[in-house]
Amino acid sequence: MQHTFDVQGMTCGHCEKAVTQAILQLEPQATVQIDRARNSVRVEAPQSLDVAAIAAAIREEGYEVKA
Amino acid sequence: MQHTFDVQGMTCGHCEKAVTQAILQLEPQATVQIDRARNSVRVEAPQSLDVAAIAAAIREEGYEVKA
Repeated sequence: MQHTFDVQGMTCGHCEKAVTQAILQLEPQATVQIDRARNSVRVEAPQSLDVAAIAAAIREEGYEVKA
Repeated sequence: MQHTFDVQGMTCGHCEKAVTQAILQLEPQATVQIDRARNSVRVEAPQSLDVAAIAAAIREEGYEVKA
């Protein structure tokens, strides 16, 4: 399953790392690809993803999740 | 001794942390105060500071040091 989140507020590589780590903590088998210029965070995993839980984890790091 | 560096490119709290940790690795007894809005990194330590070495450590993290 894959889902792409629209995440606002990632200003630097440290932000990408914080978001990636928050997602991997929830979904250790996932692959996370971030395109900061497009505010895009793509998560792909062999199993189904709990999209709401991932969005909450990203918000907890201090970023706005739009979709 | 204290020295205030003019550091460009710190965009978020993670950047502040990266700069702080780079300085503390060099100067474990120092106190680091960052005002990101002013690009200001103030380092204070009981002993003398190697200003050039601190500036190099900040640059190594990927930030521009102007003074």
